[in-house]
Amino acid sequence: MVIVMKPDASAADIAAVVGRVEESGAEAFVSRGVMRTIIGLVGDVAMLHGLNLRALPGVADVHRITAPYKLVSRENHPKRSTVWVGGVGTRAPIGPGSFTLIAGPCAVETHQQTLQAAQLAKAAGATLLRGGAFKPRTSPYAFQGLGVEGLKILGEVRATIGLPVVTEIVDAHDIDVVAEHADMLQVGTRNMANFALLQAVGEAGKPVLLKRGMQATIEEWLMAAEYIAQRGNLDVVLCERGIRTFENSTRNTLDISAVPVVQTSSHLPIIVDPSHASGRRDLVVPLARAAIAVGADGVIVDVHPDPQNALCDGPQALAGDDLLELAAAIRSLAPLLGRHTAGPPT
Amino acid sequence: MVIVMKPDASAADIAAVVGRVEESGAEAFVSRGVMRTIIGLVGDVAMLHGLNLRALPGVADVHRITAPYKLVSRENHPKRSTVWVGGVGTRAPIGPGSFTLIAGPCAVETHQQTLQAAQLAKAAGATLLRGGAFKPRTSPYAFQGLGVEGLKILGEVRATIGLPVVTEIVDAHDIDVVAEHADMLQVGTRNMANFALLQAVGEAGKPVLLKRGMQATIEEWLMAAEYIAQRGNLDVVLCERGIRTFENSTRNTLDISAVPVVQTSSHLPIIVDPSHASGRRDLVVPLARAAIAVGADGVIVDVHPDPQNALCDGPQALAGDDLLELAAAIRSLAPLLGRHTAGPPT
Amino acid sequence: MVIVMKPDASAADIAAVVGRVEESGAEAFVSRGVMRTIIGLVGDVAMLHGLNLRALPGVADVHRITAPYKLVSRENHPKRSTVWVGGVGTRAPIGPGSFTLIAGPCAVETHQQTLQAAQLAKAAGATLLRGGAFKPRTSPYAFQGLGVEGLKILGEVRATIGLPVVTEIVDAHDIDVVAEHADMLQVGTRNMANFALLQAVGEAGKPVLLKRGMQATIEEWLMAAEYIAQRGNLDVVLCERGIRTFENSTRNTLDISAVPVVQTSSHLPIIVDPSHASGRRDLVVPLARAAIAVGADGVIVDVHPDPQNALCDGPQALAGDDLLELAAAIRSLAPLLGRHTAGPPT
Amino acid sequence: MVIVMKPDASAADIAAVVGRVEESGAEAFVSRGVMRTIIGLVGDVAMLHGLNLRALPGVADVHRITAPYKLVSRENHPKRSTVWVGGVGTRAPIGPGSFTLIAGPCAVETHQQTLQAAQLAKAAGATLLRGGAFKPRTSPYAFQGLGVEGLKILGEVRATIGLPVVTEIVDAHDIDVVAEHADMLQVGTRNMANFALLQAVGEAGKPVLLKRGMQATIEEWLMAAEYIAQRGNLDVVLCERGIRTFENSTRNTLDISAVPVVQTSSHLPIIVDPSHASGRRDLVVPLARAAIAVGADGVIVDVHPDPQNALCDGPQALAGDDLLELAAAIRSLAPLLGRHTAGPPT
Repeated sequence: MVIVMKPDASAADIAAVVGRVEESGAEAFVSRGVMRTIIGLVGDVAMLHGLNLRALPGVADVHRITAPYKLVSRENHPKRSTVWVGGVGTRAPIGPGSFTLIAGPCAVETHQQTLQAAQLAKAAGATLLRGGAFKPRTSPYAFQGLGVEGLKILGEVRATIGLPVVTEIVDAHDIDVVAEHADMLQVGTRNMANFALLQAVGEAGKPVLLKRGMQATIEEWLMAAEYIAQRGNLDVVLCERGIRTFENSTRNTLDISAVPVVQTSSHLPIIVDPSHASGRRDLVVPLARAAIAVGADGVIVDVHPDPQNALCDGPQALAGDDLLELAAAIRSLAPLLGRHTAGPPT
Repeated sequence: MVIVMKPDASAADIAAVVGRVEESGAEAFVSRGVMRTIIGLVGDVAMLHGLNLRALPGVADVHRITAPYKLVSRENHPKRSTVWVGGVGTRAPIGPGSFTLIAGPCAVETHQQTLQAAQLAKAAGATLLRGGAFKPRTSPYAFQGLGVEGLKILGEVRATIGLPVVTEIVDAHDIDVVAEHADMLQVGTRNMANFALLQAVGEAGKPVLLKRGMQATIEEWLMAAEYIAQRGNLDVVLCERGIRTFENSTRNTLDISAVPVVQTSSHLPIIVDPSHASGRRDLVVPLARAAIAVGADGVIVDVHPDPQNALCDGPQALAGDDLLELAAAIRSLAPLLGRHTAGPPT
Repeated sequence: MVIVMKPDASAADIAAVVGRVEESGAEAFVSRGVMRTIIGLVGDVAMLHGLNLRALPGVADVHRITAPYKLVSRENHPKRSTVWVGGVGTRAPIGPGSFTLIAGPCAVETHQQTLQAAQLAKAAGATLLRGGAFKPRTSPYAFQGLGVEGLKILGEVRATIGLPVVTEIVDAHDIDVVAEHADMLQVGTRNMANFALLQAVGEAGKPVLLKRGMQATIEEWLMAAEYIAQRGNLDVVLCERGIRTFENSTRNTLDISAVPVVQTSSHLPIIVDPSHASGRRDLVVPLARAAIAVGADGVIVDVHPDPQNALCDGPQALAGDDLLELAAAIRSLAPLLGRHTAGPPT
Repeated sequence: MVIVMKPDASAADIAAVVGRVEESGAEAFVSRGVMRTIIGLVGDVAMLHGLNLRALPGVADVHRITAPYKLVSRENHPKRSTVWVGGVGTRAPIGPGSFTLIAGPCAVETHQQTLQAAQLAKAAGATLLRGGAFKPRTSPYAFQGLGVEGLKILGEVRATIGLPVVTEIVDAHDIDVVAEHADMLQVGTRNMANFALLQAVGEAGKPVLLKRGMQATIEEWLMAAEYIAQRGNLDVVLCERGIRTFENSTRNTLDISAVPVVQTSSHLPIIVDPSHASGRRDLVVPLARAAIAVGADGVIVDVHPDPQNALCDGPQALAGDDLLELAAAIRSLAPLLGRHTAGPPT
């Protein structure tokens, strides 16, 4: 950290900052300039964070210069991680050596709709099935998902099709039942800073798909991953799904730069959700191609056998033809980026 | 709702939209133009929302033209509401006839610190005491609050000082213990779209202070209030606390226009939090004055007897002198806006 | 400035930074920590800015810690400035001792409409008349203003009514004709970073009203003012008119905090434009009240004798009754903030 | 357009809207619902825009449902356009059949630096040379470019290397001298809404590279292109260069979705500037790959023979090795998207 003192800070103000820092066991280096004094701090970030130096007299500003996260940081873990999802025979990797397609319906509606979507997904090369049983909706009048019934359908379809299941959890209270049925727990964009939920999935013993909050900086997102990691779970996959900006021709603005930025800062895998980022079916395949080319570890897309009758986000769901176009794009582009696109190891 | 068809939409496409609308019991009015056809829908918003018309062939766009909320809307409840907080002898109003000051420490640290902050608050004319026992923090390494111990301190201070208590709930799991100790439940900015928590506070039988999500549109915020109202609780007070923008000289950007915009659309009371909006002590009093003048029903501010040693948000906490300046501003300005500033009724 | 070196920066990298700084005549203070080295720089900001230190090997980050502007900074000019507009007999102040109302039509349409608007403005206590002759419009198909004909109308109305005139300049090519007819030159939000125009108004010998770019940080806005000041013109008044955010219930988001933030950093006067910030007539008076209360030096509002037939921004123009409500608000609130509201000195 | 009336709009209010529409020669279709009346308008957008319907009594809202631009719209010109730049022997296409690399120094500093940068660019497959002679800079203390001297250097390098030159114009006053030396005129992000400049380049008889305003919606950007087209110049290439958001790990947020969105709405070519979007050299190649994959018609990048000593934007300039990596990416990816990467036609 660097403390910038005000131009009129007194010697006593400077001494008070140095004193508080040194009491905590950290070191302070004072640089006295003509106009201002700067104090560089060296010590444990978490501890320095608690010193409340900004509130001391004479302090103009505090600049943090190291990342506030540790467990998910690449500084302490230079090799990028691979997260494995699923049980024996269906385990699928998400990480630097492969390009992973996750596909399925936005919401589980019926057994048949889910099964058909899963068949489409598998035929397109997906190695994981997504599907929502608990849906967080802006309107209390919108379809909220089938709940436990939806989880059961997902379990049945998994047994039939052989793809591990990713599903969202919206309430820490449901952690046991969701963890029982799912292979990977998704934390959605609205819950990225729901710290109670982050701690619950950190202890549930399953890999986690952590979507970026639509308003979250990359640093805040990595801090949310740190909450999960702190509870002993490092099997976290990040998912860029668009941020909120002034542009309204797309539902959100896909922050494609987040992929290489995260890969520089963190060892965790990162995938992209072009369906929710855009909200428009015609943009899903182009954005998925961009995700491959920028170096993402995978994509997650909405698929529906009959988008016109989907109960949730029909306008962004891929149908069969679009999905084959996506599959072709993955097959042609991903190898150029040094990635396998085959299924799970045997 | 208005459905705009694509220029090349066929007669069958138009008929399909009309058919789906009429099946649902709503009405459809078709306007055929030279370039495009427009279909106006009349019926229940919640139901039309579920029709997924945007996914039908030939549909270019769907414009919603009425508010998606009902219970909190001013359209059905033209008179602005007053919410009363606290028990016999300490009940305090928040609403159109009064200007309410809510003050207290960002985080409860000790009994003495909380008591001193409460004394400062009361001396300045506050009729409610705020104080955080459960703190949602971006960093897992930051102080997370005293939890139940903090709730007990708040209860003791309430008994001594006689101010009803507002405190944040971050986990639906804690609803009983928080509702037992608090007079008003606060839902924080990060949890505004935590629908499980909204439903829990909707059923807890206590008034709710609902902060705006830092990324939420006003409409989404009112939808969050609708979630609470749907569970039978209309005692909801909205709190504008700044939104996230590109400007970084303040922690957030206080959206002062939200106050009159909300008052036009909803009957719920609305207050302003200048402390969290700005993150800077020197801005709290000017922004509080702006809140009074724009027509807000109150303000909520951080107070600390010793900001230099606060464990949370010290740089934005008011100390004694600032608080007296705020009290003077309220006394001089609020009556000009037609508002009482006295305490609770006897 | 503070240079943060990468964890793996070599001694040679550090020496190279120090060398480049010292060659320029500035000083460098090196603080070696366990993980990182920090180098504090002391010298002229403008010169350090040109050193391109961020491009040197081993440099992780460069933090600027002093403001990049000088002439408009309050650090070198602690007393807040008053800008006087207009000639003998009509001179009007904008600054810390007064509260200035500027009013008039968004666009000059006819002599009669401008005269009527000016009469309304004067009756409400305005001491300056605004009116657009050159209109920057998003659409090339929208009304672009009367041009020089509009300037002449403004000049005639000024002669009749006795209010100095503020009008926008959109093209440096027009500087002579606009400066000839106007008492104050307005630079609009779209041109805040049109540096050629800033330099032209800096040399024109008339006071300038500099609107904030809808996308500009406060620092960039003050840098734009610095461009004008550099050409010898310190008679610059800043105007906050809303920034672009995700919220769409108002045309822009009025950044009310910008007023006290600017007043802390710069000695220049600052006023607020509630008409363009909101785009809604019903919000203009509440937001103007907020501007007074937060400590602004004035407001500028659109007035039209017949808003329903305005050629530009009719939905936000005040008509007679609204304007009287605004006048009453100014009379009651401004004195409480220590401000005169009387007209120009004799 | 669709006019939504307020719930309490009277029959006279509705008649007044219909009357004003019909007087203008357009048609109005009235749909009376239980709660509200909706009026659909059919006619010329430009004319309807001028009717100021939002200001009429009883009008709640006005929704525009067709694009406000015509000349650049794909609706009237379904085939995507190719713009050719340069004279005999060096003409280079930008459009749907090819993928164009534009490279060169951010700022022209010396003849040698420009020549070396041009040699690097040509070796990497660039078919156009970029270089700034007039630089718009946030700080008046930063290097502002060599001006006419820089244009001459660009002309000399063009003669030596044989690449057409793209350079920025910042002041309409310079239009003749810039058009004399350059093959393509660039309008920068800060000037996208400088309508005087747009009109000047519209009449200059040279192709235009129109960067997106960092705060502009896609629709506003296309309206800026319409300004140029209106003056008779349809040789406009759009350039996405990042928008301003809350995320600060990159200089701007590259809106990669803008590429397919623009291609749906407009026939104009669109390229991407990954250098200015990110401000970070390590992100330029990944983002350029994303641009290719999403379907852009080209990229424009900063190149410098010695980035450590660049006078402008050194941290984002590619040096030799990075540029070869970019060239390889273009060669391998662009053909998969159906694009030629060869040089200009003979």
